[in-house]
Amino acid sequence: MTHRVVIIGAGFGGLFAARALRHAPVEVTVIDRTNHHLFQPLLYQVATGVLSEGDIAPPIREVLRNQRNARVLLGEVVDVNLDGHEVVVETVSERQRVPYDSLIVATGAAQSYFGHDEYAINAPGMKTIDDALELRGRIFGAFEMAEAEPDPTRREAWLNFVVVGAGPTGVELVGQIAELAHRGLQRNYRSIDPQSARVILVEATDKVLAMFPEPLRRRAHRDLEQLGVEVRLHTMVTGVDRAGLDIKHNDHDGRIEAYTKIWAAGVQASPLGKILAEQSGITVDRAGRVPVLPDCTLPGHPEVFVVGDLLHLDNLPGLAEVAMQSGVHSARTITRRLKGDTSQRRFRYLDLGTMATIARFRAVVFIGPWRFSGAVGWVMWLVVHLAFLTGFKNRIAAVVNWAVAFLGHDRRQRTITEQQVFARTQAGRRAEEVSPTLEDEGSPLP
Amino acid sequence: MTHRVVIIGAGFGGLFAARALRHAPVEVTVIDRTNHHLFQPLLYQVATGVLSEGDIAPPIREVLRNQRNARVLLGEVVDVNLDGHEVVVETVSERQRVPYDSLIVATGAAQSYFGHDEYAINAPGMKTIDDALELRGRIFGAFEMAEAEPDPTRREAWLNFVVVGAGPTGVELVGQIAELAHRGLQRNYRSIDPQSARVILVEATDKVLAMFPEPLRRRAHRDLEQLGVEVRLHTMVTGVDRAGLDIKHNDHDGRIEAYTKIWAAGVQASPLGKILAEQSGITVDRAGRVPVLPDCTLPGHPEVFVVGDLLHLDNLPGLAEVAMQSGVHSARTITRRLKGDTSQRRFRYLDLGTMATIARFRAVVFIGPWRFSGAVGWVMWLVVHLAFLTGFKNRIAAVVNWAVAFLGHDRRQRTITEQQVFARTQAGRRAEEVSPTLEDEGSPLP
Repeated sequence: MTHRVVIIGAGFGGLFAARALRHAPVEVTVIDRTNHHLFQPLLYQVATGVLSEGDIAPPIREVLRNQRNARVLLGEVVDVNLDGHEVVVETVSERQRVPYDSLIVATGAAQSYFGHDEYAINAPGMKTIDDALELRGRIFGAFEMAEAEPDPTRREAWLNFVVVGAGPTGVELVGQIAELAHRGLQRNYRSIDPQSARVILVEATDKVLAMFPEPLRRRAHRDLEQLGVEVRLHTMVTGVDRAGLDIKHNDHDGRIEAYTKIWAAGVQASPLGKILAEQSGITVDRAGRVPVLPDCTLPGHPEVFVVGDLLHLDNLPGLAEVAMQSGVHSARTITRRLKGDTSQRRFRYLDLGTMATIARFRAVVFIGPWRFSGAVGWVMWLVVHLAFLTGFKNRIAAVVNWAVAFLGHDRRQRTITEQQVFARTQAGRRAEEVSPTLEDEGSPLP
Repeated sequence: MTHRVVIIGAGFGGLFAARALRHAPVEVTVIDRTNHHLFQPLLYQVATGVLSEGDIAPPIREVLRNQRNARVLLGEVVDVNLDGHEVVVETVSERQRVPYDSLIVATGAAQSYFGHDEYAINAPGMKTIDDALELRGRIFGAFEMAEAEPDPTRREAWLNFVVVGAGPTGVELVGQIAELAHRGLQRNYRSIDPQSARVILVEATDKVLAMFPEPLRRRAHRDLEQLGVEVRLHTMVTGVDRAGLDIKHNDHDGRIEAYTKIWAAGVQASPLGKILAEQSGITVDRAGRVPVLPDCTLPGHPEVFVVGDLLHLDNLPGLAEVAMQSGVHSARTITRRLKGDTSQRRFRYLDLGTMATIARFRAVVFIGPWRFSGAVGWVMWLVVHLAFLTGFKNRIAAVVNWAVAFLGHDRRQRTITEQQVFARTQAGRRAEEVSPTLEDEGSPLP
């Protein structure tokens, strides 16, 4: 019987593993909750109206359509039975058991609120297409609310945008929101000036882009401030409600009034990690990641691979590049074994560079000992991302879209669905009734 | 004080009225429930994954951004006080009274289920962006369900697509779904062959495209059948449930098993028509449209104009072109009056042609006595639509998008949101529990 490889998750790890098996004598089943792969590094561009969801979320079936040994199953994996060599999938039509000979677990990570999941409703994260569309509705909706709001205090709170967490996602988001407010909405409004919007980046530690080397961190910090972003370091979030955030800055309590809050502060690995760990007698780390052997396999289960953000190995960061390479490494191990080579080969991450973009013509990049910033960094970032967009398939229109939108100030994707308007007016009001009003909550931090 | 013009609705009628007032000494307020204008003739391309919502729904503010005498108010008009010269708006933040000197009502029409609104949940219409995104999720979701469904009877029902109503919208939709099934999803699935999908057009009368002249109707009918669409004339819908439709064909009861149904059968004018009619002592017609004087004004209220789909005058059809021209006519009447010319001028519709597209390279067009079909008709259709897309603003990317997607078989916009998948699995199952099962409901009509 043909060797069956089951891959859970069609992110960078899962999809690169599947592609690396395209010539192998195996049957590949890719299981995912959604019908699309997601190019997460560009998700913030959907949230800010530059790209459409289709531009960054190609259907998994489309990506794999010419790979005859692969099939796609739409469903959620609710359990893994390591001894029985099968996964339990809740598909759209039924609960199904899918047997495997090799298993690659690439379910990644979700937003973490550090034990405060109640923050999510007022400060959503940005990990899925649904998140990005929700944020798009909230960001553009906030300007609409400000335009319609007669009360000046509330109007101001509608024009305050707070992003929590100064990692790459947080930095990219504040940069885009600042560009949007200061240049993208010119002459759209009559009662408000979008340029008066305040964009605030809140970070608990003393660093912007902690994973970057010191000179680039300083550069990014300066670039953000030049864009008009208020960067608040050493600032802990102690509460989130509809109208704003409670914060603690150097042991002083404070408050920021802002209806629009976005959480980009932490990640928690997929719950599947815990299921795997329990059955193999190991313990997940604090972020829920699974400690694996140097070849990415689960201790005691050489047929089970853990890749991408779910992986705990050598302190590797949660980057798309790590996911791709660990996915490919696992696929190659399976192929080698089928040829009779069962030696263990260590996964070695080849650092192809880490980038964060701040705005048009501003990015920071480091590759090993080399550092780039400003326009040079930005061009490198552009080349890498364009390479991806054209990579999977001939996606000319997406690239043109993006180039036009990104080089101009054109934000074509600004649709707020009626559902979202409704949620804002009705549910919003109800939420306001149960939560303390703006006036009761003290004045914003100076 | 400056003359205040309030325009309700930012469809073709409202937006063209606003634009026609750009040099007039007036203050224009455009009120709409959504933040976008909607290019409805291309809505079916969003539902079938060719265009993104942003491509056909430019923000109203963006369209009017350089028109200094116009402002946009996001909100729903819940009442009009004709004697007090004001409209009551439920904005996103409050209930507001907006006074006017001239009023243009351009609120259009919504889907009509001819008294069977309970059909809507199982056979949604296609009038808004929300509708189109919902349909997109249902259409692409149906192929996913079929792929995952082990039961052959149910699988077949997931691959049956029924559109009710053979007007231009219905014809365009079945044409697109047929193209999608027969060419757009090649090699995407492993358990099903999308080409085995059946696309069925159900029409109560004896005609496809009733408003078109006889030879073009025949041509459209033949084109549809060549595309593989099953056209069922003389067929009344007598019931709609989750798993299919009950129909009556020549007095024989029958049934079509199909999870995906789309309603394109009728329109009902906006409820604002009734409010206007009641206050001016007239009666709306059967479709809820308001009979107006030949200059588009409400009897007894020369300062109130009714335009577009809400208009009942000279048997004019509900076409974008009629909306645009009646909007412009009203704006010109207001401008003339401000110059002291209060003579009544009759609205005369200039017929610029009526088109319906069936598929790539196939459309039917008639302009007065002239008729075109096949590729010539299609090119004309393309030119008119491209002219629009480039008309409002420099929307290069949208045009490129569209050209690439439409000339190729590329359907980039196939995102099903997680919310939609969830609705399908959980709510779907619940709905199935309460409704009769597929097996209990008799066999499909032969």
